[in-house]
This record gives sequence, C-alpha cells and structure tokens, in this order.
Amino acid sequence: MIVKDVLNQGVPLDLVFQALSDPSRRVMVERLSRGPASVSELARPLAMSLPAVVQHLQVLEASGLVRSEKVGRVRTCRIEPQALEAAEQWIVERRASWERRLDRLGDYLAEHPDEPERKK
Amino acid sequence: MIVKDVLNQGVPLDLVFQALSDPSRRVMVERLSRGPASVSELARPLAMSLPAVVQHLQVLEASGLVRSEKVGRVRTCRIEPQALEAAEQWIVERRASWERRLDRLGDYLAEHPDEPERKK
Repeated sequence: MIVKDVLNQGVPLDLVFQALSDPSRRVMVERLSRGPASVSELARPLAMSLPAVVQHLQVLEASGLVRSEKVGRVRTCRIEPQALEAAEQWIVERRASWERRLDRLGDYLAEHPDEPERKK
Repeated sequence: MIVKDVLNQGVPLDLVFQALSDPSRRVMVERLSRGPASVSELARPLAMSLPAVVQHLQVLEASGLVRSEKVGRVRTCRIEPQALEAAEQWIVERRASWERRLDRLGDYLAEHPDEPERKK
C-alpha cells in the first residue's frame, strides 16, 4: 500500500509532511521560498536559540525540503522545490479524487431527483 | 510569525501535516477521498489491528481532515476537504513565492547577460 509513495519521485512524504508540521520550520520554508538565506537570517524572526534553529534545519534537510552549503563561515540554505511539489501533488490527487466523486454524486442525484442518496 | 497560520481559516496546519506524515493515515485519507467508509473498510488494506486503525482515525479527526459519525454499530468516516485545501494552499503559496523569485532572477540575468549572479 505504500508503493505509490515510494514511486513519488523518491520523495519521502513521511519526512516532508513531518517537517512541515512545525510552525517554526514553516516560517523557515516560507523565508527560503523568497530566496536563499544564511542560518542567522533564518533565525532572525524566530524566538529561539541558534542551535535550535540548526536542529530544525537538519529536519528540513533530512526531508529534502531544504539543502545547505557552507562556504567559509557562512552556511547558505536554499529551498528544494521537488519535495514541496511532491507533497502538493499528493494533496491535489486526493482533491481530484474527492471532486470526481462529488461530480458522480451530482450526476446521480440529477438523474434520480426523487430518490434519496443510497449507500454505495 | 504564526499569525498567518492562525488566520488560515482556523485550520491547524501543525496537526494536518502531522496527520499526513504517516503512510497508513495517508492510505485512509486516500480511501476516504473516494467516498465515505466504515472503520472496518478503512482497516481492510492496512496490516494492523482495528484498535490501531481507530487510533489513526483519532489523529485524523483531531486534525480536521476526517470526521466520523456512529449510527447504530457502524461508524462512518468522511473526508473534510477544508483541511486538505488549507494544506494545499500553504504549499501553493510557497511555490508561487519561489517561482516569482525565479522569474525575477531570470529577468535580471536577461538584462545583465555578462555578470554572474550576485548575492542579494
């Protein structure tokens, strides 16, 4: 049953959704979606210590949402769009499936205006 | 910094993303996106006990992704599309922000073909 996830371009959806479940990490992703940033730039709007920010960064990197590179003394972080896209695609597919069902239900009700909805 | 989430139609994104971080729960959401199901129908494709399925269901309900209703001895579960839509919207906004940045970068490079990209 997890085949679909594994085929999902190799993106570990467990880790991606887990990474996005924290508001500070979402603030970091939000910042990085506007362009690369150093760790201290990422930390600026967050009310936490630098080591705590680094820990969140490690979760984001493990999920594939972010990558970082150290040049000299500065570590620069960037968004990795593929992981976000995989998460978006999973949700979009569920919505499409749900909307198709609503369409079928609408068709059925239009064709059978006098009958109550039946359990399928 | 969490204001945006709170305004997000009241949907608790922490809990939604957390709920989606488990593959069994994603299988349950996937099944429910195709129509309502009883708990035992939800359990069928999952290699786990019914109590374990009920626990996952509770996580899904707490996140707002799913609601369930017991009639007689059967508990019927349904998807709640608003929570999924809020998660999708959050991701789509990040992608839009990232794509705008790429567009700006593309414009800059087109106007300055001889210069390397500079740190902003």
